[in-house]
Amino acid sequence: MDAGVVMRGKSVDVMWLMFAGSLVFFMQLGFALVEAGSVRAKNTKNILLKNILDCCIGALIWWAWGHALAYDPGDGFMGMTAMDGAHAPNFFLQASFATNNESHGYNMAIWFFQFVFAAAASTIVSGAMAERTALPGYLVYTIVITGFIYPVIVHWVWSTDGWLSVFSQGYWATEGVDGTYGSMNFPLGGGVIDFAGSGVVHMTGGVAALFGAAIVGPRVGRFDEKKKPLPMAGHSSTLVVTGTFMLWLGWYGFNPGSTLGMAPAGYSAGASRAVVTTTISAAIAGLVVILLEKLLGDHTYSVGAACNGLLAGLVSITAGCASVTPGFAFLIGLMGGVFYFISKETILKCCKVDDPVDAVSVHGTCGAWGVLAAGLFSAPELDYRKCTPGQDERCLKGGLFIANRADGQSPNWNIMGAALAEVAVIFCWTGSISLIMFYLLKVTGMLRVSAEMEAAGMDVSKHGGAAYES
Amino acid sequence: MDAGVVMRGKSVDVMWLMFAGSLVFFMQLGFALVEAGSVRAKNTKNILLKNILDCCIGALIWWAWGHALAYDPGDGFMGMTAMDGAHAPNFFLQASFATNNESHGYNMAIWFFQFVFAAAASTIVSGAMAERTALPGYLVYTIVITGFIYPVIVHWVWSTDGWLSVFSQGYWATEGVDGTYGSMNFPLGGGVIDFAGSGVVHMTGGVAALFGAAIVGPRVGRFDEKKKPLPMAGHSSTLVVTGTFMLWLGWYGFNPGSTLGMAPAGYSAGASRAVVTTTISAAIAGLVVILLEKLLGDHTYSVGAACNGLLAGLVSITAGCASVTPGFAFLIGLMGGVFYFISKETILKCCKVDDPVDAVSVHGTCGAWGVLAAGLFSAPELDYRKCTPGQDERCLKGGLFIANRADGQSPNWNIMGAALAEVAVIFCWTGSISLIMFYLLKVTGMLRVSAEMEAAGMDVSKHGGAAYES
Amino acid sequence: MDAGVVMRGKSVDVMWLMFAGSLVFFMQLGFALVEAGSVRAKNTKNILLKNILDCCIGALIWWAWGHALAYDPGDGFMGMTAMDGAHAPNFFLQASFATNNESHGYNMAIWFFQFVFAAAASTIVSGAMAERTALPGYLVYTIVITGFIYPVIVHWVWSTDGWLSVFSQGYWATEGVDGTYGSMNFPLGGGVIDFAGSGVVHMTGGVAALFGAAIVGPRVGRFDEKKKPLPMAGHSSTLVVTGTFMLWLGWYGFNPGSTLGMAPAGYSAGASRAVVTTTISAAIAGLVVILLEKLLGDHTYSVGAACNGLLAGLVSITAGCASVTPGFAFLIGLMGGVFYFISKETILKCCKVDDPVDAVSVHGTCGAWGVLAAGLFSAPELDYRKCTPGQDERCLKGGLFIANRADGQSPNWNIMGAALAEVAVIFCWTGSISLIMFYLLKVTGMLRVSAEMEAAGMDVSKHGGAAYES
Repeated sequence: MDAGVVMRGKSVDVMWLMFAGSLVFFMQLGFALVEAGSVRAKNTKNILLKNILDCCIGALIWWAWGHALAYDPGDGFMGMTAMDGAHAPNFFLQASFATNNESHGYNMAIWFFQFVFAAAASTIVSGAMAERTALPGYLVYTIVITGFIYPVIVHWVWSTDGWLSVFSQGYWATEGVDGTYGSMNFPLGGGVIDFAGSGVVHMTGGVAALFGAAIVGPRVGRFDEKKKPLPMAGHSSTLVVTGTFMLWLGWYGFNPGSTLGMAPAGYSAGASRAVVTTTISAAIAGLVVILLEKLLGDHTYSVGAACNGLLAGLVSITAGCASVTPGFAFLIGLMGGVFYFISKETILKCCKVDDPVDAVSVHGTCGAWGVLAAGLFSAPELDYRKCTPGQDERCLKGGLFIANRADGQSPNWNIMGAALAEVAVIFCWTGSISLIMFYLLKVTGMLRVSAEMEAAGMDVSKHGGAAYES
Repeated sequence: MDAGVVMRGKSVDVMWLMFAGSLVFFMQLGFALVEAGSVRAKNTKNILLKNILDCCIGALIWWAWGHALAYDPGDGFMGMTAMDGAHAPNFFLQASFATNNESHGYNMAIWFFQFVFAAAASTIVSGAMAERTALPGYLVYTIVITGFIYPVIVHWVWSTDGWLSVFSQGYWATEGVDGTYGSMNFPLGGGVIDFAGSGVVHMTGGVAALFGAAIVGPRVGRFDEKKKPLPMAGHSSTLVVTGTFMLWLGWYGFNPGSTLGMAPAGYSAGASRAVVTTTISAAIAGLVVILLEKLLGDHTYSVGAACNGLLAGLVSITAGCASVTPGFAFLIGLMGGVFYFISKETILKCCKVDDPVDAVSVHGTCGAWGVLAAGLFSAPELDYRKCTPGQDERCLKGGLFIANRADGQSPNWNIMGAALAEVAVIFCWTGSISLIMFYLLKVTGMLRVSAEMEAAGMDVSKHGGAAYES
Repeated sequence: MDAGVVMRGKSVDVMWLMFAGSLVFFMQLGFALVEAGSVRAKNTKNILLKNILDCCIGALIWWAWGHALAYDPGDGFMGMTAMDGAHAPNFFLQASFATNNESHGYNMAIWFFQFVFAAAASTIVSGAMAERTALPGYLVYTIVITGFIYPVIVHWVWSTDGWLSVFSQGYWATEGVDGTYGSMNFPLGGGVIDFAGSGVVHMTGGVAALFGAAIVGPRVGRFDEKKKPLPMAGHSSTLVVTGTFMLWLGWYGFNPGSTLGMAPAGYSAGASRAVVTTTISAAIAGLVVILLEKLLGDHTYSVGAACNGLLAGLVSITAGCASVTPGFAFLIGLMGGVFYFISKETILKCCKVDDPVDAVSVHGTCGAWGVLAAGLFSAPELDYRKCTPGQDERCLKGGLFIANRADGQSPNWNIMGAALAEVAVIFCWTGSISLIMFYLLKVTGMLRVSAEMEAAGMDVSKHGGAAYES
């Protein structure tokens, strides 16, 4: 009877990643159902298939080279560029697998957790481009995002070598006076607080979605001849609500799970803070968007608005979920709802971009807001960047205006500067590659289905018949 | 490499609450789909929105004052009435958050787990009042239930000060001769066995649902002019079954998770007992109700009956899930199915109350039965009330007729009396407030939509169009 | 404050089984939705009810005698045949419950995990026989499978007495020179690698499904008068995709959870290997079947093919998930997709068997392939059969062609022989009993509904009306 066996912390960390990763995996179904419910019945199979392909392709890419590109030793820009000869690149998980038993399998569990994040990033785009994007174009962009755009950003922000990473021990960091790393040998060296990826995952997906939706053009009938939007309802509110609740559930893996462990001191407290802030931000954002839609939007109590409000709140708190107090989580969610509403109205009515699920606003706008909010409101005592106040000269903990200023220092532009930098580089990096990629796909005719196929619906044209039969 | 780090139990407790709480959160989607499937298509969006609002409003209330009202020090009746000056009331989680790191975040994780329970209680009502209740009325009752009715009951039964709580160390308790608390200085002082809340959560929701459904009145067309019920089928059996399976899944967090931890000795055994008893009670209750409906009801093999039977079994075992043997779990589920069937026939055909999802019978009747069943059948060696047989004079462990009577004591009215008291006070407390509240809402015209809106359906009237489009 | 309490490993094992078991339980909903989406709307309630009954009946049987038949001490063939008098048979969980506290509840948690596996095995059959099987016939076969066919196979492969079990310490085993058991006193004594049950669960269900579908005969209209298959689409692709994602999620409990613990050394590494191999196999199999269907099948990008491809990959990796490298997982999934495609074409077009969900191919064919693949490709260092190379004379670790052959031994027919034996005996045992059972049901008229009822649909005939109303 080994009932008294003392538990190894690393094994519990593996279990934690399995639990959280499974919840995040379930978000794939959440995305699929939100997107399916938001399109017309005639394109249901098409969007469902794209969501399945995101999972399949994402898994194989993340196994083959994605994880290596993101997490192998690098020079701050991307992985595998600073391999020291003693290690092989972690293509096909060879390195992770080799250390599997020594690490209690932690490296493999981490791969699983990172794969489901990668799959989320590319899935965001398919909704914004739904109902008119051709499969070849879809395949190209999903491979480019999962295989190149996204892992490079991960390397910047979350790897031990990234130029924006709090974990940085490499090119851009110096050893702090107390032996910690991640200290600042250039102004942003302390790294950015993007705990679970408001920027890395959601803003990346949202920016790609913006360029994709703009370049592929609106669905036929979305605007009248004066470019005024016409209503184009999805085929099932029930699916949208079901998917949204599944996404909310998944976020309880996404945010708390980003501690990547339970055993080290303070990790369980970080996870439990995240679960509270995530709940509060989602709740208030949902209410705010319902209210805004009733007062300023289409003047109904809109279920779709409620769902996107919840998602806006969830995306907004993702960066700061472990480093803000519940009160600021309330504020972040409230503002996230407002920014979502302004954004989706602007994108539709001013930019004339047709985004069937408002993914650009939910993930792009609120993703950027989430990163900035963590820079504004992180509590000094919860700011987990690795510098030691009083020892490291320029170290000041906490958000822009709430940092402890007893030492007479200026507002904390160190943390806020990093947040601004992350938002700027994600926009430029993702936007520029997306712009080129979608433009090339468009001119080569790979991006959009024919007008006939769009009118008939893609399910009967390409997928063997309608999604629903009696 | 910290693979060998010894695991702290409190961190595992946090993880356990995250896991169980996530499953319980998922029940919100389960409730939403059961209710959506049980209404006609024209009111789908309305009921879905109410379920979303339950989550949002519940989270904010539970954060602002609900948790404080339930769990802050009190005088046995409600929290915050016996604050000792050394602590601030836990409004907005201030106290929980302050002790976050010291407790490994346990206090925050507890909040999450309790929030999802609170959300469940108010969600039960919306189904019973579906298809005719106006949004303003809904908003009032959901705030009153989540913000006042429910947390006070929680304080009675689950806090360390409640007059019915086994954890009571305060006003009503004396220190036992062996230094334990919860001993009995009034006849019910040992507290009631309502492990996961057959009474606290389900009966509370069910009683409010009864008064709500009765006062709002039946849907137009539910009864003919002779008050004979007419069939009024929901729009999707698939949604009902999907929601029911999700609820069943959620119960594996609801019941085992109510250990609130894994590390202390005996807790994992309690959780594993709960998972077994929960399974067996659900299984037999489902079969019983299928059979009763076939033999005595509408004489079909009814899927809806199967679903409500499962839920009846789940509610019935919730109080005693950790303190009865599998054999008694079978009996509790079997009787729960019978009571459900009698109740729903009575409420519809005798009381002429229109409850579209039979929530009153599932949660109210079976909730009361669950509390009483724990008082009848709890095994002496699993009775976790804190008194020590042989030391505490009036201490007798185990249910009414199965308590160990070797010492010549009478049937154990101590445990059964507490069960009867809980059922009685929940009925009176919830019922009286609900009666007044729903009556006031009715006379002010806030409770029910107009006949025109009911005929047209609420989705086109208030929510911008039908839930389903082609 | 017990925050510093050291964690007992057995309690974490209980938590792991709760988590994994809950995911596997959720597969019941996954199966239900895949099957519901694959049938015509008029038989929706019927198939949903059968899935509910599988759960209910499965739970009660597994409690009453199933678990005892599978895991009680036996003579290698089935449990309870070698009780030593000191223990009572574990009917109604009496033995598990008695040791509940001593084992931290582990025995009860194991029961839960095994129950959800048992429920999966019988659920596989209902899809293959959907839309024409009568309830009495269904009840008989589900009781026979869950109560006899399946637990006996479990005893062979997973109990400590089974003649094919790696855990065998009984009749067929001798104590190895190093004190370990499971050594080989007959050629297959080292046991078979079927880690999570490609054979035990899936092939068993698939073989029963084959005989059931063949004997009940095709649905009216499935073949024209020349026995050429006619299209007969299910009523909702959305339900099929939803169910498939739920099954994929559930597999993250099914495969990693089959470590049955987290605390013992190496268990977390096994679980994390399983989560990686499971992901990769599913991903490539999904892609392969999409491609095969496009090129060689119905020439569309088929969502149904994608779903069954994913499931084929998941079933194929189930046996070897903890003992193959990610590279071989890729190969196993790829071949699993190919075998699935060949099998479903053969069964439909050559055997003229009507299997609405292709369960025979997904679970039967890929289940057999999974067992053989573990015998072919298990890595020597991950082969967990209990013999010690160099000490046990005939001990050779690893799959048929990749075993370490430095010692000059022949290809490892020891492991492959056991795999072949498992496939053969599951086919013969399940097939012969199924053949007799379904034949008897057919001749007694209990197996199939009348032609009128089949034409009208079973929902209006037996279940009180259509599943969907407006």
